[in-house]
Amino acid sequence: MKSFEEELNNRVQYIEKVIRSYLIDEKEKKADRQSEIYEAMNYSILAGGKRLRPMLVLEVSRLFGGADEDTGCFMAAIEMIHTYSLVHDDLPAMDNDEYRRGRKTTHVVYGEAMGILTGDALLNYAFETAIKGIRTASDLHRALRALEILSEKAGVFGMIGGQVTDIKFEGQTVSEGIDNDIATLDYINELKTGALIEAAMMMGAVLAGAGEEEVAVIESVASDIGRAFQIQDDILDVTSTSEVLGKPVMSDEKNHKTTYVNLLGIDGAGEQVKILTERAMGKLRSLNGKNEFLEKLIESLIYRKK
Amino acid sequence: MKSFEEELNNRVQYIEKVIRSYLIDEKEKKADRQSEIYEAMNYSILAGGKRLRPMLVLEVSRLFGGADEDTGCFMAAIEMIHTYSLVHDDLPAMDNDEYRRGRKTTHVVYGEAMGILTGDALLNYAFETAIKGIRTASDLHRALRALEILSEKAGVFGMIGGQVTDIKFEGQTVSEGIDNDIATLDYINELKTGALIEAAMMMGAVLAGAGEEEVAVIESVASDIGRAFQIQDDILDVTSTSEVLGKPVMSDEKNHKTTYVNLLGIDGAGEQVKILTERAMGKLRSLNGKNEFLEKLIESLIYRKK
Repeated sequence: MKSFEEELNNRVQYIEKVIRSYLIDEKEKKADRQSEIYEAMNYSILAGGKRLRPMLVLEVSRLFGGADEDTGCFMAAIEMIHTYSLVHDDLPAMDNDEYRRGRKTTHVVYGEAMGILTGDALLNYAFETAIKGIRTASDLHRALRALEILSEKAGVFGMIGGQVTDIKFEGQTVSEGIDNDIATLDYINELKTGALIEAAMMMGAVLAGAGEEEVAVIESVASDIGRAFQIQDDILDVTSTSEVLGKPVMSDEKNHKTTYVNLLGIDGAGEQVKILTERAMGKLRSLNGKNEFLEKLIESLIYRKK
Repeated sequence: MKSFEEELNNRVQYIEKVIRSYLIDEKEKKADRQSEIYEAMNYSILAGGKRLRPMLVLEVSRLFGGADEDTGCFMAAIEMIHTYSLVHDDLPAMDNDEYRRGRKTTHVVYGEAMGILTGDALLNYAFETAIKGIRTASDLHRALRALEILSEKAGVFGMIGGQVTDIKFEGQTVSEGIDNDIATLDYINELKTGALIEAAMMMGAVLAGAGEEEVAVIESVASDIGRAFQIQDDILDVTSTSEVLGKPVMSDEKNHKTTYVNLLGIDGAGEQVKILTERAMGKLRSLNGKNEFLEKLIESLIYRKK
């Protein structure tokens, strides 16, 4: 039997291949006057990363007995959207980060104007890719519903809404009391991190033909996972090292960010991760169908060390 | 008989109403923690403007006998995309403009981080709006083709590609000879301005059920119009006043931009506008169907004073 790490590695390799197949071939299109944008897009998206969101699309689709071929363009699209959000987050006017995953950020390499345009390009190309993919979908209506979920969860009622709330909350110097602060943090994370995880898992379910009730359960599982994932992120920021994480640690404190660790302490935050994970697993196991790898994946993501 | 100005006014009012119906109701959603992004989106898109692109969707659809109701979400979506491109263009790292249409630009009012996010939000919401609209489309396949056109023409092979080439060309201090410079300018304008005008007109045609050959003619008409429109823009930048234009004049010279006026002189540039317009009109009149307002609109846009 293969170890979880082997299985994970196989999937990452498969996903990398799928994502690459949807990227613009910068060598083939070298002669285009705008070719630098293809390079910058590829530089940004091929920076490694866990490929968590596409993997969740794939594995939830498998949970419901879906065909892998139906997930390709959506796996690529959601990773493009995740990547654009990182590229824009790193900009000087946002988090002003010069390194990500151990490499220089996009605007540091290509300049700030190109950083803005590369994010725009990845967001647009995500939809371009998914919309083109729909033409050959085995079930047009499922594919359209997946596209609709992606557009909603990535937008102002989803991820972008979370980023906006985050900026407003950071600018706020006075605590509104611990309960209100936790509620705001929950809201930010539900949208900023949770929304795309929900999109990934819901798309997988929808593409595999899951019913609306099952999709709702998956959305709620994803919401718990997203929150646990974010709390773990806050914990790692104070307990890990920059060598292990591949990005600076203690950055939340440096940026005077309110985090779950500030509000609940490391132990309290760890307890929350445990509660959310167990609840998510319970709901996931209540569904028909089983995907052991998905269960192990979720646990490994939440209890990760980097 | 109504004058062209009256007819134009009626249409602008109709389009304003349609666009507003697709915007987020910021008062109704005031309680959302991210409500400032709704405000910033609406501030940006309700800044007036000619509503040229939605009007072209509508009038080309009418040319081919399409139903106005089928165009709504696409009119809103293309105006959102046009608006996001302006919001990002105005950012400090791009053109660094503080005023547009006589009002402060989005990042000046809401801050730079919100300027970036507002552009992102409008781009995402454009697709969100069009994708949702497709659910109720009278012809799903036409609507999907329109969506595909929009995503292509707005992306790196369209508008964004033009912006990237523009930035590269501006950074280039040495002329590559007048013929090469004109070729590059043509390329920039074909993509930066032309692509969305092509998208607008092609979507109108596709939604009304025009055949592929007719759509190709419309694309070529739109390409000529886009180019003529851009040359006229360069001419107005040196011949108009900031009061009439609602934006600074001589900005191209200030920014050391190479323009058609630099390369061809005012008269030469004016001559080009004429040639392109006549060619576009000839092709437009070769089609079955007639839309007199559309013809007058195109002439008025190209020979506009602001």
